[in-house]
Amino acid sequence: MSSSPMDEPSPRRIDSAIIKKIVSNRFPIISWLPSYTIYLFFQDLLAGFTVGLTEIPQGIAYAIVAGLPSQYGLYSAIMGGFIYCIFGGCKDINVGPTAIMALIVQSSVTTMGPSGAILITFLSGIIIFMAGVLRLGFLVQFFSFPVISGFTTAAALSIASTQLKQLLGISGPASIFLDAWISLFKNIKETRKWDAILGFMTIFIVFAFREIKKYGSLKHKPEWSRNRNLLGNFLFIFSLAGNAVVVIGGTSIAYVAHNSYNATPFILTGDVAGGLPDLSLPPFSVTWNGTYYSFSAMLSEYGSTLAFCPIIAFLEHIAIVKAFSKGKIIDATQELMALGLSNIAGSLVQSMPVTGSFTRTAVNNASGARTTIAGVITSCMLLVALVLLTGAFKYIPKATLAGVIVVAMYYLCEFDAIPIMWRTKRLDLIPFFTTLMCCLLISLEYGIIIGIGINLTFILYDAARPKLYVERLMLQERIIYVIRPKASLYFTSAEFLREKMLKDCGESESLIVIDGEFVPSVDATVARGFFNLLQDLELRHQTVLFWNFNQTVTDICSGEHKKLGCFFRNGTLESVINDISKQSAIETTARNSDVQA
Amino acid sequence: MSSSPMDEPSPRRIDSAIIKKIVSNRFPIISWLPSYTIYLFFQDLLAGFTVGLTEIPQGIAYAIVAGLPSQYGLYSAIMGGFIYCIFGGCKDINVGPTAIMALIVQSSVTTMGPSGAILITFLSGIIIFMAGVLRLGFLVQFFSFPVISGFTTAAALSIASTQLKQLLGISGPASIFLDAWISLFKNIKETRKWDAILGFMTIFIVFAFREIKKYGSLKHKPEWSRNRNLLGNFLFIFSLAGNAVVVIGGTSIAYVAHNSYNATPFILTGDVAGGLPDLSLPPFSVTWNGTYYSFSAMLSEYGSTLAFCPIIAFLEHIAIVKAFSKGKIIDATQELMALGLSNIAGSLVQSMPVTGSFTRTAVNNASGARTTIAGVITSCMLLVALVLLTGAFKYIPKATLAGVIVVAMYYLCEFDAIPIMWRTKRLDLIPFFTTLMCCLLISLEYGIIIGIGINLTFILYDAARPKLYVERLMLQERIIYVIRPKASLYFTSAEFLREKMLKDCGESESLIVIDGEFVPSVDATVARGFFNLLQDLELRHQTVLFWNFNQTVTDICSGEHKKLGCFFRNGTLESVINDISKQSAIETTARNSDVQA
Repeated sequence: MSSSPMDEPSPRRIDSAIIKKIVSNRFPIISWLPSYTIYLFFQDLLAGFTVGLTEIPQGIAYAIVAGLPSQYGLYSAIMGGFIYCIFGGCKDINVGPTAIMALIVQSSVTTMGPSGAILITFLSGIIIFMAGVLRLGFLVQFFSFPVISGFTTAAALSIASTQLKQLLGISGPASIFLDAWISLFKNIKETRKWDAILGFMTIFIVFAFREIKKYGSLKHKPEWSRNRNLLGNFLFIFSLAGNAVVVIGGTSIAYVAHNSYNATPFILTGDVAGGLPDLSLPPFSVTWNGTYYSFSAMLSEYGSTLAFCPIIAFLEHIAIVKAFSKGKIIDATQELMALGLSNIAGSLVQSMPVTGSFTRTAVNNASGARTTIAGVITSCMLLVALVLLTGAFKYIPKATLAGVIVVAMYYLCEFDAIPIMWRTKRLDLIPFFTTLMCCLLISLEYGIIIGIGINLTFILYDAARPKLYVERLMLQERIIYVIRPKASLYFTSAEFLREKMLKDCGESESLIVIDGEFVPSVDATVARGFFNLLQDLELRHQTVLFWNFNQTVTDICSGEHKKLGCFFRNGTLESVINDISKQSAIETTARNSDVQA
Repeated sequence: MSSSPMDEPSPRRIDSAIIKKIVSNRFPIISWLPSYTIYLFFQDLLAGFTVGLTEIPQGIAYAIVAGLPSQYGLYSAIMGGFIYCIFGGCKDINVGPTAIMALIVQSSVTTMGPSGAILITFLSGIIIFMAGVLRLGFLVQFFSFPVISGFTTAAALSIASTQLKQLLGISGPASIFLDAWISLFKNIKETRKWDAILGFMTIFIVFAFREIKKYGSLKHKPEWSRNRNLLGNFLFIFSLAGNAVVVIGGTSIAYVAHNSYNATPFILTGDVAGGLPDLSLPPFSVTWNGTYYSFSAMLSEYGSTLAFCPIIAFLEHIAIVKAFSKGKIIDATQELMALGLSNIAGSLVQSMPVTGSFTRTAVNNASGARTTIAGVITSCMLLVALVLLTGAFKYIPKATLAGVIVVAMYYLCEFDAIPIMWRTKRLDLIPFFTTLMCCLLISLEYGIIIGIGINLTFILYDAARPKLYVERLMLQERIIYVIRPKASLYFTSAEFLREKMLKDCGESESLIVIDGEFVPSVDATVARGFFNLLQDLELRHQTVLFWNFNQTVTDICSGEHKKLGCFFRNGTLESVINDISKQSAIETTARNSDVQA
């Protein structure tokens, strides 16, 4: 069959168009790569390089947070760039190690060593990918802004607290918020002078670089002169180098002290294994500290972390994608698949769980990334660093890394959410503080679950106690109560409605009118409640009228009992009451004549 | 201070009035006992006696369901009448042993013997009483009509299934629905002829008595002749005696066969310990089948039953109180206290957990009970029976009791709820069948929890996917989308709203108007979502207007960001759009002049 010259496309053409659409949805790279230019490449190169300067110290630092040897942090930064470039839909996102993911796998690493982190990366990847296939992305909608803020703040405070000892050169692990502070105060006398000085200097310098940013701008500002704009450009790019500057500075001091003066004033990161990671399947069993863990033993050792890790990874990722999508619609399914594949691929090169990083994505965006090729550049830079620079990494002072993390965590804290919630909905402070405190004092997992639970009870409470507007009128010498619920009525409110009406509309012979204009739907329990109300009121010589309800609700109530259906009316209130007065007059006459007969 | 002669009551008088009110709320007997007459007493006597005839066989039968010696069922029927008479608010209620309570304690009796039932009676009493003090009665509102129907039906089917073997004279226990049927089919060959004949005859006769009721009436019917009315009265009272007739008949046959012909064609109840129960504290530890259970061991043996038993007791009780309160407002707190005290007092005379019984309450009401004195009569009758009649009880054939239970369970099944839900809200069939199947196949506890969970997700789903009415207009040569959500907006819907608007209102330069007339409130997450929407739309050269929102919502959104507050308008749609068109014209001019300068 030759291609038809008519306007209507042939069925075969439609098929191929649909397939093309599906393929380009699943491989977003197809849509933009053909029009990629060398000019765009240079912009991506600059951005990718800047992000790399941030990712190297962060990778090493987060590996330490997780309790892993430093090189694992660098391994974790490799695969995200390549995979997300092909499957990801948002140009700025940097997928790699993050502080929160590091904190989550920490306990698994303690019991099962690096294998504990690598296997959960693989499993999380599978879970996230499957969640994408099953279109479960909507689940993130159950995480409200107060709960996410509370969780993020708690995680940032926990991580910063665990870094305090490194900052002061005090040895020994401290994995939880409270433990970290208790152990800090116990061992405060062990503080090493030079480590503490370097740590606080690091914090000071990184903060100062952050402040410089305010005076710079990458965009042309019309109110500035030409020179001021040039200076602005320079200051902005310079401010992004803060982390790199302190790490290079700290490392240089340590190197010079060690090699020229044979002194080691700081605790150093120590040997970082050089070279590329092995390409191999994730470990499905492991022997660590003399204990053998089979696959099922590893699974039971993970426990709830196995559900928590992929959920938080996706939550962090989607929050960042949302923040940087700028008006584009997010394809949550595609993002889940991209993130899942990044983790699966990462687990083949001994990565810990990865997700979108807020700081590095912001740096990427600020440095002018144009496509996800910028992420590929960053990944390539990490590969180069692994091959060539690990010899230098061992001189990085731990206090410097701790300082870098503490500042990053400072900016991650969302205490500014408190005044916002105070100004907007003060009730939302309850899930915020509950999540925050439970995450700090119990665990991140329980904290977020309790927070969501409390937040959902707000919805359930409103459904159980709908707002009722009661009006008392005199019409045609009759007392009329008009009751106006302002939401759908659910079974949880059925009893409340009935009691409220029996209590508040007590005058005998009065007529109760329930105005259904704002009630889009009811359920079977409410319909039964209406029928009970009708019977109760009849015993009190009162009548109830259901006014202005839509057809669906009328049908539902007629289904409960035919008699109930007879009390539904539409029209003006006056005509409806006229109508019912006549009817009851006829009924009374009929009853009287009955008795007389 | 002497009592003041003025109209205003003195403070002391007010105090005493309030105290009087509180006392009569807590001891309802005070309000009606002073006006109690001998005429009322005779009516209560008749009703109480009729209920007693039902309660004796039911008590023995339910003790067998629970796995207890028969006399415990009679012990359980003693205290409810006295306590509820003093503290209860609904004249018809009969508090005593019920089939569902028997089923619930069955597993505890299996492991810990009668003490297992008595201690949980005491603990349930305390829990129910405390729930009253803490005003937790509202919790029953989370049990919707479909869930309660599903649960009741499943319990009735389970109990009837466990009785089938007794009906056929097959020995051996079977405690769960599936087990009961499997074991029945395995042992069907053991069926005893005379037991089966007696069992099915019992069922037939009880059903026949129930049918007679249709032709009788206690109330005077004007359309009937005088003689027909007298016959109606007789038939009605006669029909209530069905249970008594089959039990007395069955027992007589067994007695004659045993004493005159020295034959035992039926399996008999066997010795029922005579005499009154000991008055003693509940057992706080027990040795049963050679195992010693300390108090804490008993608690852990109860497990979730300890929460489930009081909840179901109260649920059953309040459902019955509601059904018989006839327009009176129910004091849930007082009912909780009365039921709690009935259980606590019951545990002192070796009772199993008690609650309101639907069948006996209906009999009480139908027999013309006037006050809760009727319950006292019933209790006295049980005491007399325990002292004088236990010698006769041992001849009651088990098949007769099984037949009585099977018929009672038939009337407890709520399959008629299915066509009602089909006609009203079909979606409600999901929680009904889920509860029913989970209760039958997993356990009553899990079944009802799963049912409630599913039912609550309906509310959460509606909150997450609010109905939006989108209208596309042309006004002043501009495309206007008017979007009208019809409910409060919660965090779970924030993302849905944003995506919906970005997707459905795509035309560039168009104006989106969100009509807030039907939106009583929003939360902080929705406010943030609105702000993100605003920013997203600006990038697409679109504007959004928030129209007709109330002041609370406007304040919440202004709190999120001052800029957002500027997009709220009230007034007619035309004037609002005029307004915004002018404003944007000014802004455009300002921007153009900026660029030129």
